[in-house]
Amino acid sequence: MKIAIAQLNPIIGDLPGNAAKILDAARNAASYGARLLLTPELSLCGYPPRDLLLNPSFVEAMNITLQQLARDIPANLAVLVGTVEANTKAQFNGGKSLFNSMALLEAGSIKQIFHKRLLPTYDVFDERRYFEPGLQPNHFTLDGINIGVTICEDLWNDEEYWGKRSYAINPIADLAILGVDFIVNLSASPYSVSKQKLREAMLRYSAIRYKHPIIYVNQVGGNDDLLFDGNSFALNREGEIVCRALGFDTDLAYVEFDNGRHDLLPSSITPVSESEDEEIWRALVLGVRDYAQKCRFSKAVLGLSGGIDSALVAAIAAAALGKENVLGILMPSPYSSDHSISDALALGDNLGIKTQTIPIGNLMEGFDNALVGLFAGTEFGLAEENIQSRIRGNLLMAVANKFGYLLLSTGNKSEMAVGYCTLYGDMNGGLAVIADVPKTRVYSLCNWLNTNSEIIPNNILVKAPSAELKPGQLDQDSLPEYEVLDDILQKLIHEHQSAAQIAAAGHDAVTVNRVIQMVARAEFKRRQAPPGLKITDRAFGTGWRMPIASNWLAVKGAYQAP
Amino acid sequence: MKIAIAQLNPIIGDLPGNAAKILDAARNAASYGARLLLTPELSLCGYPPRDLLLNPSFVEAMNITLQQLARDIPANLAVLVGTVEANTKAQFNGGKSLFNSMALLEAGSIKQIFHKRLLPTYDVFDERRYFEPGLQPNHFTLDGINIGVTICEDLWNDEEYWGKRSYAINPIADLAILGVDFIVNLSASPYSVSKQKLREAMLRYSAIRYKHPIIYVNQVGGNDDLLFDGNSFALNREGEIVCRALGFDTDLAYVEFDNGRHDLLPSSITPVSESEDEEIWRALVLGVRDYAQKCRFSKAVLGLSGGIDSALVAAIAAAALGKENVLGILMPSPYSSDHSISDALALGDNLGIKTQTIPIGNLMEGFDNALVGLFAGTEFGLAEENIQSRIRGNLLMAVANKFGYLLLSTGNKSEMAVGYCTLYGDMNGGLAVIADVPKTRVYSLCNWLNTNSEIIPNNILVKAPSAELKPGQLDQDSLPEYEVLDDILQKLIHEHQSAAQIAAAGHDAVTVNRVIQMVARAEFKRRQAPPGLKITDRAFGTGWRMPIASNWLAVKGAYQAP
Repeated sequence: MKIAIAQLNPIIGDLPGNAAKILDAARNAASYGARLLLTPELSLCGYPPRDLLLNPSFVEAMNITLQQLARDIPANLAVLVGTVEANTKAQFNGGKSLFNSMALLEAGSIKQIFHKRLLPTYDVFDERRYFEPGLQPNHFTLDGINIGVTICEDLWNDEEYWGKRSYAINPIADLAILGVDFIVNLSASPYSVSKQKLREAMLRYSAIRYKHPIIYVNQVGGNDDLLFDGNSFALNREGEIVCRALGFDTDLAYVEFDNGRHDLLPSSITPVSESEDEEIWRALVLGVRDYAQKCRFSKAVLGLSGGIDSALVAAIAAAALGKENVLGILMPSPYSSDHSISDALALGDNLGIKTQTIPIGNLMEGFDNALVGLFAGTEFGLAEENIQSRIRGNLLMAVANKFGYLLLSTGNKSEMAVGYCTLYGDMNGGLAVIADVPKTRVYSLCNWLNTNSEIIPNNILVKAPSAELKPGQLDQDSLPEYEVLDDILQKLIHEHQSAAQIAAAGHDAVTVNRVIQMVARAEFKRRQAPPGLKITDRAFGTGWRMPIASNWLAVKGAYQAP
Repeated sequence: MKIAIAQLNPIIGDLPGNAAKILDAARNAASYGARLLLTPELSLCGYPPRDLLLNPSFVEAMNITLQQLARDIPANLAVLVGTVEANTKAQFNGGKSLFNSMALLEAGSIKQIFHKRLLPTYDVFDERRYFEPGLQPNHFTLDGINIGVTICEDLWNDEEYWGKRSYAINPIADLAILGVDFIVNLSASPYSVSKQKLREAMLRYSAIRYKHPIIYVNQVGGNDDLLFDGNSFALNREGEIVCRALGFDTDLAYVEFDNGRHDLLPSSITPVSESEDEEIWRALVLGVRDYAQKCRFSKAVLGLSGGIDSALVAAIAAAALGKENVLGILMPSPYSSDHSISDALALGDNLGIKTQTIPIGNLMEGFDNALVGLFAGTEFGLAEENIQSRIRGNLLMAVANKFGYLLLSTGNKSEMAVGYCTLYGDMNGGLAVIADVPKTRVYSLCNWLNTNSEIIPNNILVKAPSAELKPGQLDQDSLPEYEVLDDILQKLIHEHQSAAQIAAAGHDAVTVNRVIQMVARAEFKRRQAPPGLKITDRAFGTGWRMPIASNWLAVKGAYQAP
């Protein structure tokens, strides 16, 4: 049996468009002799549809689209389509009104519907908000072959692999008892660094444990902050990779189940990069391209400060949208160093993007004059620094609004964590491209980018980082060294460590407490940040839900270092 | 048995501070002869603690605080304290690692711990993200009286009252079978217009149905976007109100359970206002006061345009923080009408707040000059209108940053819905005071405020609304009449109606589709808005989770009116 894997890039909510993508894959697959086509979780509406699911007319439209799709797919091809089904018993028995489902379409009709059993409700996932868990193991028979169906999280609860259970049941164990021939897993699994290694190791463990081939299908593409990396793959009964689809791109891949050998046969295996930098780069390029396209932007604008963050974002934007579609704007102030201008222009030349220069000195004077009465007798300080950043933010938005460009913001995760950024200033933008990329990773990405030739001008890489909002200012006047800061942030944000634990790992206790306070106090800024492309397992954004008006952390000594 | 109701206003995460508030109430209650003190849901950490719960050191600190509190409370007083307990079996059985709990403290120790059974995961609630549901009915015996314990949502599933089930079980039915003498419900129930009527009607139904007195305890205070209105109350077996605590303020109320009559005795009943405007006004004043205090601001600044929105917000701020702590800034442009200045000054006089005037004409020229090259050959349009708004936003933030003021933004819900507002301009602020108040309600609140004397200058109430960003501009040039707009928005946002349904209710189909498109396209602005005080059952903010890059709604004709 030839099985096709449709690694699709849906647009959230675009039911006719997504159905057309499924149909196109189905026609291709049928013409290549496939008997079964697999599509990702919720492939009809795209993942995550979020509160669109609360809209009854949306659910109804999805149903109508699914029925039409069932009629349209080629004869002799069975297709698994991700959709929702109403929980008709909810009114009487309680529970959420929908199931996260896969519909088996065959011979013009909906043959069977399967319900996702494990509903992730953590990090960026809100599935308990919408869905009721399915209670039955899911499987169907096609040409005498018994195929187990699991949806994403259903395969993420192997208690032996994890050393603990996250849910009471393990759907793959249920399927093994039922004697399925192989298992498909239809997923929309968001990208984070090295996640593909985790997926393959985890499913290899389950394949070997239960002696079942597994075909893992993933969505691809960027949907707001979430990036889906594709990388669909298949494992034989020995847990060996027999197929891997493209990373960070749509694909239509094929695997063959040999009924005699009772196993999947070797097929085409796309290699995965060993470089984390390359992987992150591809993720970010995809994220910018998809956010722009799905929001109907063809061009982007950003501020070029001559620093490394905007340099990286400009390079990503040029790769995502084409260099001719990226405009970099230099906005020097009297505090700008000469090299900030020459470095930004050199970057523009290297990338081949357009640049414009708009000096802001006059506008700074204008604000000084406007505020001279109110600010009389005060010292130059943060307020004045922010004014500069907000002048730039206003100019960038003016250009974006005037010409219909997408404004990309350029702040990195380290800055966003400690609030070393200006709300309504450099934080402005429709998309925060590197908001989940720590500063140390920004350097590593730029160095990787320069492997073969100088794309990021070397001077940008070697000079000390500075916001240049006052004379002689350096980031390290206000912040710990970035190597130190990023390690503290990793322990605090990703590993949920306490100040005591972080200090015990060798960090200065005063510095640790200062960083923790900065992180807490910057919550109000992060709340108003644009969506940031998520590349780690804990990003600021939809999966980060912190109170603003709160009094935890060092403030009352709750977080005392030893 | 005398029972005290501690209607507390916790600060999220402030464990020592919240414990001190509980202890203070306990000492007072003991001195009045109370045998049992009731506190709201999660009273130790405040509701909602959100992702602070993911921090093991936070959970550990809560535990330590709880144990100390048990030692500190007066002898002869039992206290129910809202806290979390670890789900120690999660590792082996699956499930979330915490229970949303009430601890019974008595005689120096933690006597019993109860687990919330129904975990709301909808709108602003994310309880399945953190908690495992309790499986047992909760009750305890004190002086021979059998007391049933329920936590908030536990009492929101009476299938007879609602005509449907939201959850499989109804905890009050379980308690009735166990023969409890009365039931306490420890809540943190967010405010929305008229919600108190709903609570009282619902619990009256259950009290009568099960013939049990119910004591309902609610948190009070503002926590970011969420407002808790207090209004704790008690019902006797006949479902009659025998006690009601203050609305929108802390309180310590008492009820007496008469063991002989097997019922609660009449006690003090605070009347509730029949005026929705008064109720909303008090909610918004509380929200501003608490957000400011809990974020350690004593003063607020806002832009005064001479329009009705900023007038209302100024009045709320003056009531919340004291007129001497509110600064209104007028920022007239060449497009500003004379009355916009005179009306704003008259408002400032009426309220007794300070005002400052900063004309922005020169700054507008400065931006025109800066952009003259890039914008050559283009027409004056939205970009230029936004520049003005962002100049004002920059000036307001400069004042806020310089003097440590909280900037209040003044946009209403109708504007936020359709995007009739400028991101990084008039949307700037730490708190969006009336972001959940539709424009028609803004008028009604101002008229209510003027009942006895003119607080909002009459000219502000009678003139046509205008953003004054170009000559002669009126809101109604771009938007439907606000009565029409607000009704469409109510049906769309609150009632989840389709375009066809809204049009069928008598609205022009073209207008309906245009509004729906505006709402969808403004999602990127709302994503970056400050927290807005929630006063309806569906507010933009934490309970509104919409994709930005999506293609549902009129775009592809999915939302066709008939």
